[in-house]
Amino acid sequence: MEILAVVAAVIGLVVAFCLAAWIKKTDEGTDRMKEIASYIREGAMAFLKREYKTMIIVIVVLFVLIGIGLKSWITAILYVCGALLSVLAGYFGMQVATLGNVRTANAAREGGMNKALKVAFRSGAVMGLCVSGLGLLGLGVVVCVLDLATVTQCITGFGLGASSMALFGRVGGGIYTKAADVGADLVGKVEAGIPEDDPRNPAVIADNVGDNVGDVAGMGSDLFESYVGSIISAITLAAVAVQTAAETATFDQTTAAIFPLLISAVGIIASVIGIMMVRGKEGGNPAAALNMGTYISGIIVVIVTVILSKSMLGDYTYAIAIIAGLLVGIAIGKITEVYTSGDYKSVKKIAEQSETGAATTIISGLGVGMMSTLWPILLICVGVYAAYSFAGLYGIALAAVGMLSTTGMTVAVDAYGPVSDNAGGIAEMSELPHEVREITDKLDAVGNTTAAIGKGFAIGSAALTALALFASYAAVTNLESISLLEPIVIIGVFIGAMLPFLFSAMTMNSVGKAANQMIEEVRRQFREDKGIMEGTSKPDYANCVDISTKAALHEMVAPGIMAILAPLAVGIILGPEALGGLLGGALSSGVLLAIMMSNAGGAWDNAKKYIEEGNHGGKGSDAHAAAVIGDTVGDPFKDTSGPSINILIKLMTIVSVVFAPLFVQIGGLL
Amino acid sequence: MEILAVVAAVIGLVVAFCLAAWIKKTDEGTDRMKEIASYIREGAMAFLKREYKTMIIVIVVLFVLIGIGLKSWITAILYVCGALLSVLAGYFGMQVATLGNVRTANAAREGGMNKALKVAFRSGAVMGLCVSGLGLLGLGVVVCVLDLATVTQCITGFGLGASSMALFGRVGGGIYTKAADVGADLVGKVEAGIPEDDPRNPAVIADNVGDNVGDVAGMGSDLFESYVGSIISAITLAAVAVQTAAETATFDQTTAAIFPLLISAVGIIASVIGIMMVRGKEGGNPAAALNMGTYISGIIVVIVTVILSKSMLGDYTYAIAIIAGLLVGIAIGKITEVYTSGDYKSVKKIAEQSETGAATTIISGLGVGMMSTLWPILLICVGVYAAYSFAGLYGIALAAVGMLSTTGMTVAVDAYGPVSDNAGGIAEMSELPHEVREITDKLDAVGNTTAAIGKGFAIGSAALTALALFASYAAVTNLESISLLEPIVIIGVFIGAMLPFLFSAMTMNSVGKAANQMIEEVRRQFREDKGIMEGTSKPDYANCVDISTKAALHEMVAPGIMAILAPLAVGIILGPEALGGLLGGALSSGVLLAIMMSNAGGAWDNAKKYIEEGNHGGKGSDAHAAAVIGDTVGDPFKDTSGPSINILIKLMTIVSVVFAPLFVQIGGLL
Repeated sequence: MEILAVVAAVIGLVVAFCLAAWIKKTDEGTDRMKEIASYIREGAMAFLKREYKTMIIVIVVLFVLIGIGLKSWITAILYVCGALLSVLAGYFGMQVATLGNVRTANAAREGGMNKALKVAFRSGAVMGLCVSGLGLLGLGVVVCVLDLATVTQCITGFGLGASSMALFGRVGGGIYTKAADVGADLVGKVEAGIPEDDPRNPAVIADNVGDNVGDVAGMGSDLFESYVGSIISAITLAAVAVQTAAETATFDQTTAAIFPLLISAVGIIASVIGIMMVRGKEGGNPAAALNMGTYISGIIVVIVTVILSKSMLGDYTYAIAIIAGLLVGIAIGKITEVYTSGDYKSVKKIAEQSETGAATTIISGLGVGMMSTLWPILLICVGVYAAYSFAGLYGIALAAVGMLSTTGMTVAVDAYGPVSDNAGGIAEMSELPHEVREITDKLDAVGNTTAAIGKGFAIGSAALTALALFASYAAVTNLESISLLEPIVIIGVFIGAMLPFLFSAMTMNSVGKAANQMIEEVRRQFREDKGIMEGTSKPDYANCVDISTKAALHEMVAPGIMAILAPLAVGIILGPEALGGLLGGALSSGVLLAIMMSNAGGAWDNAKKYIEEGNHGGKGSDAHAAAVIGDTVGDPFKDTSGPSINILIKLMTIVSVVFAPLFVQIGGLL
Repeated sequence: MEILAVVAAVIGLVVAFCLAAWIKKTDEGTDRMKEIASYIREGAMAFLKREYKTMIIVIVVLFVLIGIGLKSWITAILYVCGALLSVLAGYFGMQVATLGNVRTANAAREGGMNKALKVAFRSGAVMGLCVSGLGLLGLGVVVCVLDLATVTQCITGFGLGASSMALFGRVGGGIYTKAADVGADLVGKVEAGIPEDDPRNPAVIADNVGDNVGDVAGMGSDLFESYVGSIISAITLAAVAVQTAAETATFDQTTAAIFPLLISAVGIIASVIGIMMVRGKEGGNPAAALNMGTYISGIIVVIVTVILSKSMLGDYTYAIAIIAGLLVGIAIGKITEVYTSGDYKSVKKIAEQSETGAATTIISGLGVGMMSTLWPILLICVGVYAAYSFAGLYGIALAAVGMLSTTGMTVAVDAYGPVSDNAGGIAEMSELPHEVREITDKLDAVGNTTAAIGKGFAIGSAALTALALFASYAAVTNLESISLLEPIVIIGVFIGAMLPFLFSAMTMNSVGKAANQMIEEVRRQFREDKGIMEGTSKPDYANCVDISTKAALHEMVAPGIMAILAPLAVGIILGPEALGGLLGGALSSGVLLAIMMSNAGGAWDNAKKYIEEGNHGGKGSDAHAAAVIGDTVGDPFKDTSGPSINILIKLMTIVSVVFAPLFVQIGGLL
């Protein structure tokens, strides 16, 4: 049966390959467009190559650490597999995204909105199918090749591989994109007074590279981590599932372990169908087309899940857990939209508050971010309650698997945004007619909402995955209880709850430092070569790309090391119970902080856009100036610190699961 | 023995009475000063009176709820006692603070810095001694009058009384003070261009009333709650102490219950001595004098604690728990200073970042706030670890008692700040010579640092008290474990962690709404009576005071109801284990959010002051404008939302403890 998962994964990858070939065949447009696009592509690849050099060190160190520390070389090898597949998914996805951006611009130029939507969405779809296809392929092969006992014992290594690479993708990429963005805006727009995406701005290419590095590859690696993490957790909890079902169980552990793989297989096929269904009508709303695809793939998963649940595990209850996860994911996405879209009252209120200055913009934005935590948290609670009531701890892992089953579709919808954004940049830099930019702007506007939804989805799935892995942690450590009445657990909870705050402070500082380097470089180029502003000489784009790349990789070291060392230190010094507390504390405060930061950032962004549409005085008004300040604060919130917290909570949990045998053995030095 | 606690409490109150009489005898100054001071005093008392009307409703409702719901009228009566004593402490303290402000101004006018320090500090000391004296008096009498079984069963009602009134003091007072402040600043300073504390500003009296209402009475009620909460928790855990000590116990439950009362008694006497030792030298640093008093009272408590611990409980270990709490409290205060004072690098960095605009001011301030959570959390963890290792769960309560033993001194040091601030306002409005304002400004500057320390202390003590009460909750509900591996507990943790975010959003919105009403009123007065700006007619101060009062009391209803209903709802619907999770989640995320908001707010405030001292361009520069925005964002952070979280976490815990029998009986409807 498990071979079906491999088959579905291969189908997904073949479709991705076909889509990529189709994109490559479409026309790139004018020479100027080709030139600009090649700068962006080269910059993105330059970042990836440099990133790989650092990654190799991390992979080797962790490979040795796992092998020697845990005396399990299979775990160590699976770690390398997980890491390499994550890297591959990012590489393919970004390659195609940087092919798709210029072709989207050209499609807008030649074929109009409908054609542009198609190219942009298919570019995103390649990333989506690579993420889910490679993730399921890796896990499927592992389950086919190894016996179940080895799988349950060692497969967490695969998850750690995905997690440690996601750290680079999300945190490194997040720092890159905002450093470049802030640098380009502050010196270009504010100091030099040239428009956004003006080719005279030396940081303009780095800014566009950042969209790919942060929003495409970063998001992809984040969801790759969630995707494999949720399946791994379900596999390791398969034994628990059999115990929970007790006498009534009509299935064995192997079936329970294969079940999540098949659900994911269904999800890939459903995503492929959903992706094919996304067809914009000329003059129609692109958002409707995207939503249609999402709903169709969701419905397919629901139907097949019900059948599989009954036929494989002898009961419908397991389907309920999966459907609960899927519904919660979609609902969190919708709620995110309500709090971050300019069509609803929260964003309008921030725009209104901008009339009394930047301070009220900031306060009301933070208020919206904090307020927006209510429903996502309650939804997660309902999902957990339903999943657990119907299918035990195994059910929580299934809910995560369900939420992530249509990852192919979700990432496609999400990655389409930055591709359109990039297309707009290329249109601007290539001086294409105004109508082209209007089309890409419309696609980008829809993309902004879908990106916000994607961020909400990423947080929800991170929470559920981390929770499922937390259950795996308890199973691996054989802890009967992690009781809040034990002071050592409370100490763990306090430390854990503090880490997302510390981590966010570190990533925000990192963005600040990296942005400062970029600002100085842009100023230097303007100062030393007056021809740049006059348009007579070409700015040195490559140097700006290089600075962003170096700074991002340098600045992610400290938060990255903290994320790996904190659970190791607490596990070794205070023991496995305290570490359990730490994971619980980090999960709860981390999810909240991530929701707050992402939604506040999204809301500020759209409040600014809402004013720019002509409300409250429009562009150039005092309200607009205040809204720009809100947006600038929101940038690192929503694109660096907020999403990075997803990685933090998942990475700390998987590190704990992998190294759990060590903590149990040492027991806590204190 | 318990009678000694009553005696010490009475001594503290007598000293407070003598200090109040001394203050009343000092000269009020010119007629103009008397007039201004009478406006402030009347405004403050008007707020209190209106507050009392609402309070009476709450007291009656909760009295009936407790009596009928728990069928324990003793608990209900003790509830009323706790509430009334909290109200009394606030009433006396504020009365004297509003007598002290004008006399401080006059002392600065006639006697110079040293005399002014004396008056201001003694005004604060009355509040401090009222808080600890009335708290200990109430608890001491209860323990003297009732038998121990009844005490342990019903005394939590006393704590609930203190908590529910602290909600009014801290949340209502916090909204009042910031609504008035923002209203006065925005219309007066920004729109009309008149200086701060200008008597032509209709909101100027309300602003000065706010200092008393929020910073004196609010802080007092917060610490009154912590003070009685910690002692109550230690009393209810006395039985646990005897069990923990097992065969080696040389004491009975009664001794263990009286022990914390005696520690607090020692703390009051030590505070009285410390207060007497605060004597500024002419030309000396007022901060040094205040620190001296704090250290002396701390040392006295340490010495006597060691003796009492050995003689009463037969072991020094209990003293270690108390000393750990005391040291953690002082250390958190010091760390707060490092992150919020202009003498250290964090504030300087914010000031530097202000040069690149308001956005970077905000980002770096939030970064400082988040970063500043690290050490306080680690310190609390160390304190909990030490207290628990040496004296079990009872030890955690003792650590809280230790931290709060010198509350008399702590509140004195803290309340002195707003008194000096008010004195400066009165000097300004009475057009006293410039030198007077310089003296009060210097006192106020020191007061700003001591206020930040006081806020850190309030958070630390809230955390420890809530933790101790959490242990009491477990004891009352007979829960063996509140395990994070139970999904119902995790659901509780998620909801609990979300509540401080929701609560903060609500309080920030409340400030915004109340401030808007004030802004409209001030604009209306300026518009309808042109004579105000010309100085020919007197603005209607009373109307502004009235609006602040009404708005504050109206706007605190929603967050207040949430704080009381959330634990009741979760306890009844999801059961006592889920409620345990909620308390743990709220405690961890709440403490972090409170530290972050208070310290970010304090740091922004002092970054602005640092720039005003002439750095980065000084007053009127772009950096200053950016820093003002940071300060405005920080105002509700540090004076409303941040401190209000202290109340939220303590109130929810004590509500849970009091109504625990109900939850155990109903068991969780789901």
